[in-house]
Amino acid sequence: MVLKVVALCGSLRKNSYHVSLIKAAQQICQHSLKGMEIELLKISELPFINPDLEDNGTFPPKVEAFRQKVSSADSILFATPEYSYSVPATLKNAVDWGSRPANVWTGKTAAILCGRGNFGGGRSHNHLREIGVYTNLHFLNKPECFVPLHSPQTNIDGEGNLIDEQSKKILQKILESLQEFTLKFSAKA
Amino acid sequence: MVLKVVALCGSLRKNSYHVSLIKAAQQICQHSLKGMEIELLKISELPFINPDLEDNGTFPPKVEAFRQKVSSADSILFATPEYSYSVPATLKNAVDWGSRPANVWTGKTAAILCGRGNFGGGRSHNHLREIGVYTNLHFLNKPECFVPLHSPQTNIDGEGNLIDEQSKKILQKILESLQEFTLKFSAKA
Amino acid sequence: MVLKVVALCGSLRKNSYHVSLIKAAQQICQHSLKGMEIELLKISELPFINPDLEDNGTFPPKVEAFRQKVSSADSILFATPEYSYSVPATLKNAVDWGSRPANVWTGKTAAILCGRGNFGGGRSHNHLREIGVYTNLHFLNKPECFVPLHSPQTNIDGEGNLIDEQSKKILQKILESLQEFTLKFSAKA
Amino acid sequence: MVLKVVALCGSLRKNSYHVSLIKAAQQICQHSLKGMEIELLKISELPFINPDLEDNGTFPPKVEAFRQKVSSADSILFATPEYSYSVPATLKNAVDWGSRPANVWTGKTAAILCGRGNFGGGRSHNHLREIGVYTNLHFLNKPECFVPLHSPQTNIDGEGNLIDEQSKKILQKILESLQEFTLKFSAKA
Repeated sequence: MVLKVVALCGSLRKNSYHVSLIKAAQQICQHSLKGMEIELLKISELPFINPDLEDNGTFPPKVEAFRQKVSSADSILFATPEYSYSVPATLKNAVDWGSRPANVWTGKTAAILCGRGNFGGGRSHNHLREIGVYTNLHFLNKPECFVPLHSPQTNIDGEGNLIDEQSKKILQKILESLQEFTLKFSAKA
Repeated sequence: MVLKVVALCGSLRKNSYHVSLIKAAQQICQHSLKGMEIELLKISELPFINPDLEDNGTFPPKVEAFRQKVSSADSILFATPEYSYSVPATLKNAVDWGSRPANVWTGKTAAILCGRGNFGGGRSHNHLREIGVYTNLHFLNKPECFVPLHSPQTNIDGEGNLIDEQSKKILQKILESLQEFTLKFSAKA
Repeated sequence: MVLKVVALCGSLRKNSYHVSLIKAAQQICQHSLKGMEIELLKISELPFINPDLEDNGTFPPKVEAFRQKVSSADSILFATPEYSYSVPATLKNAVDWGSRPANVWTGKTAAILCGRGNFGGGRSHNHLREIGVYTNLHFLNKPECFVPLHSPQTNIDGEGNLIDEQSKKILQKILESLQEFTLKFSAKA
Repeated sequence: MVLKVVALCGSLRKNSYHVSLIKAAQQICQHSLKGMEIELLKISELPFINPDLEDNGTFPPKVEAFRQKVSSADSILFATPEYSYSVPATLKNAVDWGSRPANVWTGKTAAILCGRGNFGGGRSHNHLREIGVYTNLHFLNKPECFVPLHSPQTNIDGEGNLIDEQSKKILQKILESLQEFTLKFSAKA
């Protein structure tokens, strides 16, 4: 059984560290961690959340496509910086669209990757976890997040590849924990 | 001295109750509360927050215009529903743009109007207040928010006007409290 | 397999509604829900949290006994009012003692019962859930809590028994959800 | 005009760093900052919060004395570690007693000192600030807290005195900000 994970990135920057983290996670799933695959979803082209754009349960095409991707996933990987002690607007927008009835997040597991930020992003994580109570996401408690990028200049190369071995090990551990956690939720009680 | 208040609405719906609350607040300032005027800022046309769009401290024109409006205000009025237990993406996006250096929110007072939502919007308020610690906004504690719209169908008429006298009284009290609070912050210590 | 649940009550009042909720939950487990038993732990006699009272990993006798009860449980049931938008001190004190190394909460499931409070106790719940990230508790997302006691005078009789059938049904549903959720965590991945 | 500040310490440890911070703040007010005096309140002997202990608006003697001290103060200084991502039980207990009607915290200013903790105590601060919305405390936003004690062994001497000059400067700045902020609230609008 291959678990399907969709990844959402909170930063739109071209050289986002958080995209680098997702890429590194994808490579780990291709090479050293069996049974899980990660797809990065594009969220920057979704319109701003507005229920008026819905027509009798039908969403604009890009929103519809996004919702179907989430709906068919087993687990969610959020990689995000912290903006103003909270979740970046782009990421919140994607979560809001997914939460519209029928809520596509419900019952899935989730983990958070965070490279930098005030207090290591701890405040935005709390907001994301609280949003997860509404959307019925089950977040991994430990490892709580991923804060290795004290020196992104040396941890990430010119093509945006994570090249720090210590960071890769932490990342692999998070992915293994997410896999184990997700399999519990998929198991029959 | 006339205090300048800018209002931001968290909902993009055409018939948003929260726009109605802002309109009602504007009318109160025109008719029964001296010394304060409210301008509703348009935030739906700002691009998604992306520091790559900044060029050496220069922002895209719409962002620049928004930031200048905030910068010249004495106080901020947020009128917002709660989406997924947090702040709607559109509103968070505007806050994020304003928080980019130099942070235009700093030292201003703020109040929250909320018409409906889970637990009366109490969770999104907490997120907004925590964002306010980062952006250095001073929120009114009491009245904490505005939750009169148990029956928007009868409280708001076909043109989006608030017609419930009880709601108007609460709203007037909030505006008076915001005025008094803002004057304290403008006073010389 | 019988799941062992320990219950903690946030109120010390003699006629606490939350003790009534726990009693009702115990009766449901005795009569209509197989496979789960609930023990109410006494937390009012624990000393105030103070690491100086620990001696090389040994705790004061009452703390030691409390920690062993929690340690041997499969799941935790918190029944608590909201005090000042957060968790009552007595309950926080018990959680603090349990979190001292070795953290006895780790990996267990948990649910929250709340009868009354501002916004239905939604803010204290969020604090308790955030504390759960540190202590590695897995909280049930839905049903999020239990807010039936609009009229405690008629819902609870003179001996503190919950007598409202609608409330009992909601309570039974929460307990069934907690049982199913806990069994998932006990299952081998 | 001399502002009266009461200080509450969240730790009961004999050699608490946070008591050292309060002592250092008291010395600053005696020597280099005019117009403010700080009294450390004893909160460890308050009983656990229990409304049954109130008799028609009368509180147990130690609670009554504590409430009067708070009531006559202009501002509150919280010095506290973070326990389980939240406020230590002892401190929450004192806040709960003060919040019982008539709420003695209302309208006062407050600042937080924090020497250590996960993410520098950022999560407990947020809980304390949210509690402050209920109790109507106005917290200083900036400086947000005080996190200089990376090396308490060298920053604090054998008698519990803060001896690090950099830490003392930060502390002085916080106290000056609190004074200025409190004077604004005392000013007539």
